[in-house]
Amino acid sequence: MRDVVVVGVGMHPFGKFLDKSLKELARTAIWNALKDAGMGPKDIQVAYIGNSLAGLITGQEGVRGQTVMRDSGFSGIPVINVENACASATTAFRGAWLEVASGNADVALAVGMEKMFLNDTSKSLQALIADSEVELAKMGIQFTAYYAISPEYNLKKYMKDYNVTQEHFAKVTVKNSQNGSLNPYAQHRKPLTVQDVVNSRMIAYPLTLYMCSSMGDGAAAAIVCTPEVARRFSSKPQVHVAACALRSGMFRRPDDTETPSSVSLVSRQAYEKAGIGPEDVDVAEVHDAMAPAELLIYEELGFCKKGEAKRLIDEGVTSLHGAKPVNPSGGLAAKGHPVGATGLAQISEIVWQLRGEAGPRQVANPKVGLTENVGGVVDGESAAFTTTILKR
Amino acid sequence: MRDVVVVGVGMHPFGKFLDKSLKELARTAIWNALKDAGMGPKDIQVAYIGNSLAGLITGQEGVRGQTVMRDSGFSGIPVINVENACASATTAFRGAWLEVASGNADVALAVGMEKMFLNDTSKSLQALIADSEVELAKMGIQFTAYYAISPEYNLKKYMKDYNVTQEHFAKVTVKNSQNGSLNPYAQHRKPLTVQDVVNSRMIAYPLTLYMCSSMGDGAAAAIVCTPEVARRFSSKPQVHVAACALRSGMFRRPDDTETPSSVSLVSRQAYEKAGIGPEDVDVAEVHDAMAPAELLIYEELGFCKKGEAKRLIDEGVTSLHGAKPVNPSGGLAAKGHPVGATGLAQISEIVWQLRGEAGPRQVANPKVGLTENVGGVVDGESAAFTTTILKR
Repeated sequence: MRDVVVVGVGMHPFGKFLDKSLKELARTAIWNALKDAGMGPKDIQVAYIGNSLAGLITGQEGVRGQTVMRDSGFSGIPVINVENACASATTAFRGAWLEVASGNADVALAVGMEKMFLNDTSKSLQALIADSEVELAKMGIQFTAYYAISPEYNLKKYMKDYNVTQEHFAKVTVKNSQNGSLNPYAQHRKPLTVQDVVNSRMIAYPLTLYMCSSMGDGAAAAIVCTPEVARRFSSKPQVHVAACALRSGMFRRPDDTETPSSVSLVSRQAYEKAGIGPEDVDVAEVHDAMAPAELLIYEELGFCKKGEAKRLIDEGVTSLHGAKPVNPSGGLAAKGHPVGATGLAQISEIVWQLRGEAGPRQVANPKVGLTENVGGVVDGESAAFTTTILKR
Repeated sequence: MRDVVVVGVGMHPFGKFLDKSLKELARTAIWNALKDAGMGPKDIQVAYIGNSLAGLITGQEGVRGQTVMRDSGFSGIPVINVENACASATTAFRGAWLEVASGNADVALAVGMEKMFLNDTSKSLQALIADSEVELAKMGIQFTAYYAISPEYNLKKYMKDYNVTQEHFAKVTVKNSQNGSLNPYAQHRKPLTVQDVVNSRMIAYPLTLYMCSSMGDGAAAAIVCTPEVARRFSSKPQVHVAACALRSGMFRRPDDTETPSSVSLVSRQAYEKAGIGPEDVDVAEVHDAMAPAELLIYEELGFCKKGEAKRLIDEGVTSLHGAKPVNPSGGLAAKGHPVGATGLAQISEIVWQLRGEAGPRQVANPKVGLTENVGGVVDGESAAFTTTILKR
């Protein structure tokens, strides 16, 4: 398969934008990516559009991507709508990568988008929106409870086995809030203290409000192509796609402690494909939907051994200027989590970091970046797991 | 890119199955395809799941494919949920093809599935279902009106310009009802007469009820792999994927009569890729969502010149034993049209025809088969167009 590079990335800020439609959010991200790549709509040969919730929230169940692409000035090209819950956007990125890697296309666009805050001026959708609100409320409760009590994470056992406290989780949020305060695309930009986090409203022990990522509106996009095509359009440093791994859950039995976790498995696949190990990763964006998840992910990605994640956060190893910066963007905690957009915001951040374009949140000279993105729940385990590795 | 063959296909019959869930429909199609291929779940390396409406109808908005794959006995493999309205299933097929063609996988599964009739025993979904019914009713009205009055089809002008009558449209339905009467997977198996069709309830002139495809429950699946892998599992005649073309609408101005239609454009791409012309197609499954569409498609696919489609139907050219059989399965008219499943039912029929396994509806010794599938409406034109060419 051919070498593929990311030639452009772009975002619409994440936040609460009651006056903006899904199309407007996506249009901004798409045109920012086009501008970054030095391209126009006619240069794009195929588009993968990731979204998870628009059917229930906006009522646009079918051909979501085509409505957005039409609005953004595209016509005629293949558009593939993909969905993998919170991993929808990295699934879209994988599709775009495969088009170019295979030789089926030379330039491909991936878009991730989500509109979660409701536009109450849209009377025609009131009935459906009312139901959607019920569903979303349900989902929020389920997901919080899921992280707090599920056997997939088993937080209370983890805390007991490795002497991990609620303060360790709070420190993850503190780090990410500091990073997010430097990110103009982040929804929450107030730096928090451990006391702020621990004293925020209890959601489900050990989780407090500030440990939980919030819903949001937002969009992000990336354009991939061959290195030769990229050179015709852009003089920026080339960022190569070293691996795009995707798995579903293993659906292990609860008593199965032998089978590695799906995050471990998908990241091993990605490391193997990229020909690197976890020690080679210079910067990572990971799926901190809830703060404790970030610590577990350190271990699952092989950044440290089982039970040692608390040391990484205690010693600032994963801070912006630590040896292994994680979530320099502020992560889901600070950026907010517009479900179908999150994965491409991770990709965008890694591209900016590898190019040295991350401004006040730039980490020191990274050569290899990784994103880890997780989506959905089926039968007690997350449903979709992606690990993407990018190299300068 | 590598040569790809279809090694297995399978369907769940199309119809009204109030007692069956989306998972059950899909499971039957998947296991029929596995059986046809001589494979088990462990032989499948990646799955593309096409569905359009489950978010609104069943409430399962996210990770639809993972819920189905888990239920069907799969774990761990990449699952990509794709949506392109009525072309969702051929979009899923294209994804599976690209995985194998690229070398990213050796064996890939594509599934198309839709549950449109509502299971009124499922109390927990009543609220959402009530809203979905409103939406579906709206959609039915829109789509019928769309075919009757849209500038994309402009039926009344077509009838006037080429002296086409309502009876010509009725003859399409009659042909397809006869074919469908021979298809155990078809929802409607009663052969109709021209009088039956013309005298059925008027929907929107020139369309009567029997000219319109009906909603349905159903699923279809296909397994693709390299020819070498296929030989290890199956001794059936190999069916090669000669082209998998996908486009979005061109969004032409209403006064633009120069730009070819999107069906013409996507089929030209497919013919070019396959190295054949329309004269080489021995059997076709096309998107007769409304009977008049089939006549227009004859012309857009190049089976005849503009305005000559009525001759093909008058002279029986596209009948089961004519020179160019179209919709031997009964088409959407007789099979029913469970949106996200339709495209893979078309693929299944062409595979059976090319293998000589179509029983009483077998056409004479076909070597090349084509499917044409269309989905959604954006800005006055269909949104997704696929043409797939299969060769023995």
